[in-house]
Amino acid sequence: LSYIGIDKLLRNKRAMILSYDFGIEHGPQTMNEKNIDPSYVLDIALEGKYTGIILTPGIAEKYYNSVFVDVPLIIKLNSKTSIPETFPLSKTNCSVQHAIRLGAAAIGYTIYDGSQTEPEQFHEFGRIVEQAHDYGIPVIAYMYPRGPGVKDELDNDLLAYSARVGLELGADFVKIKYNNHMQSFSWIVRCAGRARVLVTADYKTENEYLLRRTYDILRTGATGIVVGPHVWKNERPFTLSKALSSVIFDHKTPEQAMGLVR
Amino acid sequence: LSYIGIDKLLRNKRAMILSYDFGIEHGPQTMNEKNIDPSYVLDIALEGKYTGIILTPGIAEKYYNSVFVDVPLIIKLNSKTSIPETFPLSKTNCSVQHAIRLGAAAIGYTIYDGSQTEPEQFHEFGRIVEQAHDYGIPVIAYMYPRGPGVKDELDNDLLAYSARVGLELGADFVKIKYNNHMQSFSWIVRCAGRARVLVTADYKTENEYLLRRTYDILRTGATGIVVGPHVWKNERPFTLSKALSSVIFDHKTPEQAMGLVR
Amino acid sequence: LSYIGIDKLLRNKRAMILSYDFGIEHGPQTMNEKNIDPSYVLDIALEGKYTGIILTPGIAEKYYNSVFVDVPLIIKLNSKTSIPETFPLSKTNCSVQHAIRLGAAAIGYTIYDGSQTEPEQFHEFGRIVEQAHDYGIPVIAYMYPRGPGVKDELDNDLLAYSARVGLELGADFVKIKYNNHMQSFSWIVRCAGRARVLVTADYKTENEYLLRRTYDILRTGATGIVVGPHVWKNERPFTLSKALSSVIFDHKTPEQAMGLVR
Amino acid sequence: LSYIGIDKLLRNKRAMILSYDFGIEHGPQTMNEKNIDPSYVLDIALEGKYTGIILTPGIAEKYYNSVFVDVPLIIKLNSKTSIPETFPLSKTNCSVQHAIRLGAAAIGYTIYDGSQTEPEQFHEFGRIVEQAHDYGIPVIAYMYPRGPGVKDELDNDLLAYSARVGLELGADFVKIKYNNHMQSFSWIVRCAGRARVLVTADYKTENEYLLRRTYDILRTGATGIVVGPHVWKNERPFTLSKALSSVIFDHKTPEQAMGLVR
Amino acid sequence: LSYIGIDKLLRNKRAMILSYDFGIEHGPQTMNEKNIDPSYVLDIALEGKYTGIILTPGIAEKYYNSVFVDVPLIIKLNSKTSIPETFPLSKTNCSVQHAIRLGAAAIGYTIYDGSQTEPEQFHEFGRIVEQAHDYGIPVIAYMYPRGPGVKDELDNDLLAYSARVGLELGADFVKIKYNNHMQSFSWIVRCAGRARVLVTADYKTENEYLLRRTYDILRTGATGIVVGPHVWKNERPFTLSKALSSVIFDHKTPEQAMGLVR
Repeated sequence: LSYIGIDKLLRNKRAMILSYDFGIEHGPQTMNEKNIDPSYVLDIALEGKYTGIILTPGIAEKYYNSVFVDVPLIIKLNSKTSIPETFPLSKTNCSVQHAIRLGAAAIGYTIYDGSQTEPEQFHEFGRIVEQAHDYGIPVIAYMYPRGPGVKDELDNDLLAYSARVGLELGADFVKIKYNNHMQSFSWIVRCAGRARVLVTADYKTENEYLLRRTYDILRTGATGIVVGPHVWKNERPFTLSKALSSVIFDHKTPEQAMGLVR
Repeated sequence: LSYIGIDKLLRNKRAMILSYDFGIEHGPQTMNEKNIDPSYVLDIALEGKYTGIILTPGIAEKYYNSVFVDVPLIIKLNSKTSIPETFPLSKTNCSVQHAIRLGAAAIGYTIYDGSQTEPEQFHEFGRIVEQAHDYGIPVIAYMYPRGPGVKDELDNDLLAYSARVGLELGADFVKIKYNNHMQSFSWIVRCAGRARVLVTADYKTENEYLLRRTYDILRTGATGIVVGPHVWKNERPFTLSKALSSVIFDHKTPEQAMGLVR
Repeated sequence: LSYIGIDKLLRNKRAMILSYDFGIEHGPQTMNEKNIDPSYVLDIALEGKYTGIILTPGIAEKYYNSVFVDVPLIIKLNSKTSIPETFPLSKTNCSVQHAIRLGAAAIGYTIYDGSQTEPEQFHEFGRIVEQAHDYGIPVIAYMYPRGPGVKDELDNDLLAYSARVGLELGADFVKIKYNNHMQSFSWIVRCAGRARVLVTADYKTENEYLLRRTYDILRTGATGIVVGPHVWKNERPFTLSKALSSVIFDHKTPEQAMGLVR
Repeated sequence: LSYIGIDKLLRNKRAMILSYDFGIEHGPQTMNEKNIDPSYVLDIALEGKYTGIILTPGIAEKYYNSVFVDVPLIIKLNSKTSIPETFPLSKTNCSVQHAIRLGAAAIGYTIYDGSQTEPEQFHEFGRIVEQAHDYGIPVIAYMYPRGPGVKDELDNDLLAYSARVGLELGADFVKIKYNNHMQSFSWIVRCAGRARVLVTADYKTENEYLLRRTYDILRTGATGIVVGPHVWKNERPFTLSKALSSVIFDHKTPEQAMGLVR
Repeated sequence: LSYIGIDKLLRNKRAMILSYDFGIEHGPQTMNEKNIDPSYVLDIALEGKYTGIILTPGIAEKYYNSVFVDVPLIIKLNSKTSIPETFPLSKTNCSVQHAIRLGAAAIGYTIYDGSQTEPEQFHEFGRIVEQAHDYGIPVIAYMYPRGPGVKDELDNDLLAYSARVGLELGADFVKIKYNNHMQSFSWIVRCAGRARVLVTADYKTENEYLLRRTYDILRTGATGIVVGPHVWKNERPFTLSKALSSVIFDHKTPEQAMGLVR
């Protein structure tokens, strides 16, 4: 088996990843003249020393180039818009091979576990893991439980189950939402086993809140965070990135990090 | 990655493209003895110095030949009739490889974003982009929002969202409808980023109106226009093409251009 | 691109084709001891000097051989029975490659344009055209409009639309029904453009009627006719074939041709 | 085209085939300690000098070996259980290539003509015929009309239609049920043309009845019979096989054959 | 045909297999800090001298290594979560080839016979058997009857039918549930023929009960047992494994084996 290049996404064994698939998943409705431009966000990723940036294939092809070589490229292989009122399902719009040609150091794929198309999703994800691992490319599984059997997406048992499914299907990282229960969240991290946990959160807009959460999340054993609009919609994204970085990589407290932002 | 031959469809960085897939999308019911003949339309494209002509594969194979080498051929890979009362979906009836054998300089593909088959459409489009870009062939995404979540096809946010989806999925050009809001339309062009915007409009039949709109559209930052029945149903298509050309490439005002038509 | 062997199905630029897929499409219920035998029908095709015979792959494989080399073989790639009460859809039961191995000079494929499975049908047809044309084999599209949007199958606009769809999708011949409106039918032929039109008709049993119709059809610009049960259920199929031939190839009037039959 | 090895299944141009897919199609509920063992049934086939034995791929792989070389192996490529209350459809659970590796001299495939999945079934069957004939392997089509359009499975017209469909789709043998109408059944045989007819019947348990039916069936022009439970559930299967053989191959009357059984 | 490596899973012709796909099939809700860790369970398998361990591909890739070479790896190719309230269907999330690369000595696949997707399941299973047997890898079919036609999953006839289906489709082992009817269960084993029977049971938590059942099951002719949570949730899994081993391989009575546990 190939060596899987997980380390490329890590610094001091931790990850701080910037996500920018908002334009396809949610639309540009709440974006502005600055952050609608992928170059702007790539600059934040580069200067903020993120350990990875998540782009859709079209944006990667047209904007990611050798200037950004220090920010590993993560290509999201499947996406959907928020327009259709239909069941949750995203099929790949980019192959693993194409992602690699575009310079991907890792790939991402969303699984809506529990949805009625779960069998097809597991099947497609399985093929992707095989192909990616053949090339030594790590896979990030976005685990989002959905469907009539899902009452509360942030239920701890359900998050633990979802994280576990990511591990069992071959993901190298599972990306899950944070439910604000630090204590029980560490169980979720345990369930993911050797699949590293990346946490995304429905962050409030206050910087302090974001730093506090990041601090808490890392104490649960998670490997890192994935941030998106909170940063690239922020008025001072470079400063905020620096503060985040100090919490994640330099073991600063949220209070110490706030000193950088204020 | 291959160089993508976008420049073939441009003159002075602008595009003026003639579309002729009306026969399959709408039927020959409103066509006449002259414009039902693809040769007639190809002649207009050639003499009118269009920077591209959009044909279905069958018509390209039987009518497009070396005489028309100065009009780049754009093959529409998927089409549907207007007969079925069913959900919006067009699957490819021509492969990228076949389009290239037929002489295509670019290909077109319709995406009904928001429809219930969105996952399948994104998936098929993704494969097409990969194949086309392997050959250095640019891709035009026709972005038409549809489905129960779509109240108004010309809503600015929805058009912006659709344009953005085209960019994120790898299109080199997005073809969208014009909603007559010049001010806000420039936002849509921004959302498309490095994917160039081609605008099609539900043009009224008056020439002046068409020229005025074209002038406005280009001021939003769009790269060009796609015209169809308005030109090849026109009694003086060559003159009208000349007028359009003067607005698009020679920076004439609509009033100046009208001087050519009257 | 390969040269497409359309001429093989023509004599003096016209076509007179015998069809024998009745057994699968309608069943042997109204057939008899003689015409249930494919050899009998092949003999009619040979002696009647038809420019093509349409067979299903099974019958072609077991009955068509070097004796019949003067009657070009056309293999129908998709068929359905009349038993199921379901939506109109025929998928291929024979590949282009297999048809060629069986000796096919051309292939036929039925498209139910307007039906709910139109996207799948256009997709399969597109692949067939590509493969057939790679081998230089012409394609006959049977264009039969169906579905809730179809009130009258013989509506002139609908026939014109269907004929056009055949052209746009790459057919070399479109096979459509005749609606007894000679005047307006010539418009349909125009809509098919460089795709030649083969006409099939719900012929009455009188010979005179068949000859009259054939005469009319050819005056609309159609390339030829496809006859089936009317001939091989006829008591004197060889004589009738001779009469048809005189109308089609020797420019006889129906009255003159009747002299051969009586 | 390859020579198709039809003769391997014939003796004196007739066929006497033992079928043993009962375990998957109906379940072992009415089987016993002896006939649940495939070896027991293979011994009957060998000693009874059957011209073929029909097995599912799993049983063929584990039980059929060089000892049985004198009984040609026919592998059933698709099967279903009788548990699901769903529409009639069997998809292949074994490829033609695998069947050949397992030693198959022929393959069988069930088509439920008239069912709502008819297009998919015809499509899969078409591919199987192509592959089998590439290897010179004959194909047995089990023709079972089903679906809302089917009132009476044993209707003579429907059986004739089904037999014909088998021929038109490329089957070398069609396996159909017997409807006890000897006179009209010969018409069905005519409809199958050069596809040989194998008859299966809802045999009563009396030996005399089975022999009488076999005698009648062969007089309709059918090539042979397919027997199953009647033989391998019989207390004296070897004697019964001898009696059947005398009717089929030695032109004995049922009365004469009964002398061997009593 | 390749030799199928069935013996790798046997000791003295019997099997004692540890299953650990609980995390994906049921979720980690009832697991604890110890048994959530695959290493812990792998240690039990190694020290308990199990003749195989069943893992999902993701866990196999990240946890199974050369240390565990004495415990043959069985990779479960398809799994589903218990979240969706949908019809029973699991599609492969791992190919046979990938399983082999991960070190698999055998593969497992769940078939829900009787469910509405039975045709697709049989089709996918058939391909898997072909591929696995090409590599000489044995296949374990989990036979779980489901669907509206299934009133009682533990009905003896239904279990016998399911076991038989496994044999007929090419499984080398069928894994079925135990219904506590030792007498009639031996009929089920007979129905499976040369496919070896592995039994799983809804074991109660008392060790004595488990040992008694195991003893009974082996007397029905079954080849072995598959145990899961009962062992790795047990407080003394190593001791219990030893007791199980003494019953299975050393022909101890449950009473004798209990001496090891107490």
